[in-house]
Amino acid sequence: MEYVTDLIWKPGITVKELVDNFKTIGYQSVELSKASNVIVKMKKEGAKIFLTFTSNMVTSGLRGFFAQIIKLGIADIIVTTVGGLEEDIMKAKGEKFAIGKFESDDVELHEQGINRVGNLLIKNESYMNFEDRILPILAKLYEKQKRWAVSEMLREIGLMLDDNNSILCQAAKNKIPIFCPAITDGAFGFHLYLFQQKHPDFIVDVVKDFGNILFTTSHDDKKGVIALGGSISKHHAILCTLLNGGAEYAVYMTTAHKTSGSMSGATTNEAKSWGKVKDDSDIATVNGDVTIMFPLAMMKAMEELHADGLLKNENS
Amino acid sequence: MEYVTDLIWKPGITVKELVDNFKTIGYQSVELSKASNVIVKMKKEGAKIFLTFTSNMVTSGLRGFFAQIIKLGIADIIVTTVGGLEEDIMKAKGEKFAIGKFESDDVELHEQGINRVGNLLIKNESYMNFEDRILPILAKLYEKQKRWAVSEMLREIGLMLDDNNSILCQAAKNKIPIFCPAITDGAFGFHLYLFQQKHPDFIVDVVKDFGNILFTTSHDDKKGVIALGGSISKHHAILCTLLNGGAEYAVYMTTAHKTSGSMSGATTNEAKSWGKVKDDSDIATVNGDVTIMFPLAMMKAMEELHADGLLKNENS
Amino acid sequence: MEYVTDLIWKPGITVKELVDNFKTIGYQSVELSKASNVIVKMKKEGAKIFLTFTSNMVTSGLRGFFAQIIKLGIADIIVTTVGGLEEDIMKAKGEKFAIGKFESDDVELHEQGINRVGNLLIKNESYMNFEDRILPILAKLYEKQKRWAVSEMLREIGLMLDDNNSILCQAAKNKIPIFCPAITDGAFGFHLYLFQQKHPDFIVDVVKDFGNILFTTSHDDKKGVIALGGSISKHHAILCTLLNGGAEYAVYMTTAHKTSGSMSGATTNEAKSWGKVKDDSDIATVNGDVTIMFPLAMMKAMEELHADGLLKNENS
Amino acid sequence: MEYVTDLIWKPGITVKELVDNFKTIGYQSVELSKASNVIVKMKKEGAKIFLTFTSNMVTSGLRGFFAQIIKLGIADIIVTTVGGLEEDIMKAKGEKFAIGKFESDDVELHEQGINRVGNLLIKNESYMNFEDRILPILAKLYEKQKRWAVSEMLREIGLMLDDNNSILCQAAKNKIPIFCPAITDGAFGFHLYLFQQKHPDFIVDVVKDFGNILFTTSHDDKKGVIALGGSISKHHAILCTLLNGGAEYAVYMTTAHKTSGSMSGATTNEAKSWGKVKDDSDIATVNGDVTIMFPLAMMKAMEELHADGLLKNENS
Repeated sequence: MEYVTDLIWKPGITVKELVDNFKTIGYQSVELSKASNVIVKMKKEGAKIFLTFTSNMVTSGLRGFFAQIIKLGIADIIVTTVGGLEEDIMKAKGEKFAIGKFESDDVELHEQGINRVGNLLIKNESYMNFEDRILPILAKLYEKQKRWAVSEMLREIGLMLDDNNSILCQAAKNKIPIFCPAITDGAFGFHLYLFQQKHPDFIVDVVKDFGNILFTTSHDDKKGVIALGGSISKHHAILCTLLNGGAEYAVYMTTAHKTSGSMSGATTNEAKSWGKVKDDSDIATVNGDVTIMFPLAMMKAMEELHADGLLKNENS
Repeated sequence: MEYVTDLIWKPGITVKELVDNFKTIGYQSVELSKASNVIVKMKKEGAKIFLTFTSNMVTSGLRGFFAQIIKLGIADIIVTTVGGLEEDIMKAKGEKFAIGKFESDDVELHEQGINRVGNLLIKNESYMNFEDRILPILAKLYEKQKRWAVSEMLREIGLMLDDNNSILCQAAKNKIPIFCPAITDGAFGFHLYLFQQKHPDFIVDVVKDFGNILFTTSHDDKKGVIALGGSISKHHAILCTLLNGGAEYAVYMTTAHKTSGSMSGATTNEAKSWGKVKDDSDIATVNGDVTIMFPLAMMKAMEELHADGLLKNENS
Repeated sequence: MEYVTDLIWKPGITVKELVDNFKTIGYQSVELSKASNVIVKMKKEGAKIFLTFTSNMVTSGLRGFFAQIIKLGIADIIVTTVGGLEEDIMKAKGEKFAIGKFESDDVELHEQGINRVGNLLIKNESYMNFEDRILPILAKLYEKQKRWAVSEMLREIGLMLDDNNSILCQAAKNKIPIFCPAITDGAFGFHLYLFQQKHPDFIVDVVKDFGNILFTTSHDDKKGVIALGGSISKHHAILCTLLNGGAEYAVYMTTAHKTSGSMSGATTNEAKSWGKVKDDSDIATVNGDVTIMFPLAMMKAMEELHADGLLKNENS
Repeated sequence: MEYVTDLIWKPGITVKELVDNFKTIGYQSVELSKASNVIVKMKKEGAKIFLTFTSNMVTSGLRGFFAQIIKLGIADIIVTTVGGLEEDIMKAKGEKFAIGKFESDDVELHEQGINRVGNLLIKNESYMNFEDRILPILAKLYEKQKRWAVSEMLREIGLMLDDNNSILCQAAKNKIPIFCPAITDGAFGFHLYLFQQKHPDFIVDVVKDFGNILFTTSHDDKKGVIALGGSISKHHAILCTLLNGGAEYAVYMTTAHKTSGSMSGATTNEAKSWGKVKDDSDIATVNGDVTIMFPLAMMKAMEELHADGLLKNENS
């Protein structure tokens, strides 16, 4: 039995020390501390780890953090949506996104050619530059073969990028597959469409990629899911672990609540209904903004994995 | 200038009368009343109307309501996720989903072979029956052609169903296309994969379908979006209207908030950044559970469209 | 076992019919339907019913609805915050509040002397008129006696008002006590303070009023709580029923979630920890905006109570 | 113009370094960074600082952190609800609260005599011990005088406690007033009532205390509000600054949203409608759980105030 303990600040307090304190503060701080422990546990137990996130997180500065997590060998399979991959490419090619305000004059922003994602701003120009960059990439892919499973295409693109903070680049380098079940739902889809108009034998094979994600793991593996936000990224990872007998570990972080029955708000308790998880210490649901919750929980886990020598490529 | 007016109940009060009152109560009731008016307006102005919803809404009893809306000619384009389409087929084939509780013993449910979606329950058996039903459907599709755009495949499936409360069936009958940008993200994806293993020339062409949704409308059309919940359904409809010059009308209903920068929580204010919407009377964001908010706003709109003779197939 | 049923609109559908349908739709519609049934049940079983709400609901058009509920004899004890009582008096004296927008230019509103509560607007002038009205009221109270329990003072004020849509007026007429544990937390508090400066023997006795609410009911009574929103209104009613052995029935409606451990987001499940409620059919927590959720659930209950002749003063 | 920057972990990262990074990540991390800066700014500008929090935060381990903040001279005026003060006394007298789970069997907890606040647990025994401790305290107060303003009574109680982690104790020692506008809304209210039954001339004067809070500051002071959670604590502080001409600085942290028009969800934008705040750099609203958000923002501010020698009693 743990007891509530008074939190006291001391100068120079580290993230690790604060998250250590969280386990005896209360409410979401307790859940966050638990999430951090579950991440350490799934890694130590050698589970295949699915990391899922939504596009808006790649718009944010979490993008480099995701790339670092891939580099350090913490995640084994990535699932995300296409908007984030577009922005990962944009950033790898030097585009800059600005910090703005939630309460903006959107009519004025439009006149300035600026798109708003919460309190972040993307210029139309960045999308136009993306077009210039994606066309030669598609041409190269087509030259190589006509029919592409999505994750295989994304690996090829990753190999064409040169940016250590890029998710696609680090995933390709470290042979971590990226799955994107709705590859056409973004500017990338539009360019794929235009390209196919000229090359009707160019095929993006989403069905084959279902097999690819299915065979990233097996019934015999231990499996863990770290799902940030909701949407199909989360659903797809859960579906894949389910078809492989269910995950042993699960950490969900979201601002959604379970009251509307949505995937975004579904809690890890449902992980128990998968029939693998028996122990409450193996699951955690943290309610809150991922830009704050995830660095806290993951950095605490990284400190422990670092101390135990479980991180790869630390000095590269 | 409207003023707050005291709400008074009278016996037998209708939904129309209550929603009429909402416009002078306050907070979300005012937004809901506005949403209802925007729906009427987009229909009267002859806009191409995109209706988007997430799977969990098809799990619920809204499924028949969506089918009715399609039948009555209110929506022109549907965008949704594959889970809902699976369940629409299950229900068309007689499967029943039970009302349960949010606070369930999920370990116990698992032992009984029951899956929980919020407070709704689906038996494993229903998924197994789905398998039996989907296999001959895929065989028939393959017989007809080898390469399918998603919406074309969904229309064929709709024509094979015989249930007036089915979304797929009513959409097929009334020539309303259904788009599903992540067609593999569900049990259906698994069956597509198994089928393709035996028939490698079977192709689901998501890229072609991007062209299909793009050409459902044009820069010249007025366009309206009714987005229920978030996820890629909402994003895909917005993307399509954007590429066609932006929507003139938008109604969003969601439990998500804009504070996390997610697509689910994005408000209609961003519609202004699309450069078409100038007038606040043409957009509305309602925060709340769609199972309650949507019937209220839509039924009020239906009463007005009915009175004006703007509904199709009312007596069929 | 209830099963999910397809919702179908028919022209002229009533609120009662829609809420009947809610019980087999899913998610919050099911909870709302349950809430309506619990309200009917607590009334039929002769429970002492506590109705609590926050000030912003009185700012809205729910104010007249609350007055009607009191008139019809549905609620036995009211608990609220002082802001709402101030606004009830303002409205009884002819002040009008306008419908505005959530996204306003607040600097501009300030320059116009307008205060914003969500999407509702109150003029500074209304507060100044309130001052003119409250001073003679305080003088009359002081003339009568020097030391006042809050609920006794509020009853006197109610008797001085002449407006059937006023909560204070209907409560006074129908001998329903109104409790307000933080009577000074508003403009009223400021005027009490100024008055006491001139009349140091003028005492507002909050301690005595704790006894008053305690004796509105007893261990022998069945007790029900309808708590709209959170705050001390909800807490005070729960506290009083607890000290009387716990409530048998509870309906909570709120936009808050339980994840932060706040009173606002606490669910009716905790009612079970009071040791009286055993049966899930006697409690319901509805998540959503009260301006929509409460009229739906309560009007459905009113239709049933009306049909059973359980409403008072229907023709006055 | 700030640009989004990739977040990178390094071993031993401090809270200060992480929150420094937050300002270029996005969404709530940006708002949290801003909140931290506003706190530093209000302190450096010599503003009178109101710190408000709700009872559940005192149930949690934030209690000792609040006491430390008072000790270090960061807050000038405290506003809270009575439940938290009861628990501060319990803890000062050695009661321990346990860490539990959100999803508990509440019927079972009741049988064990345990009360649940989110995922924290309080034994009935602690409340009974509170009774034993509060009675002699009330007797001493009554001996001293018969009529007490709330904040004066709370200071006396603080002087009777001997615990550096106690809010009441540190506030009394450091002459920081604590206001509690609903002093009867808890177990303390019940004991006050029983005491008054035996001593009818014992009066708790809430009206006088309104004057006390009003005179903690003036139109001439700069004023800042740090409001954690909503409820009357937040409202009372805002009301007091308003009557003194409005606050120059405001930081709100809450899980509530503005969509329901509640005080809990009201944003700092309304601070602009007070007519003092002109500059967006002087206000911040952070959406999220206070047990995580507040330590992060405040500790970052403390590091800066520490470096600038602006903290009192650092070595005592």
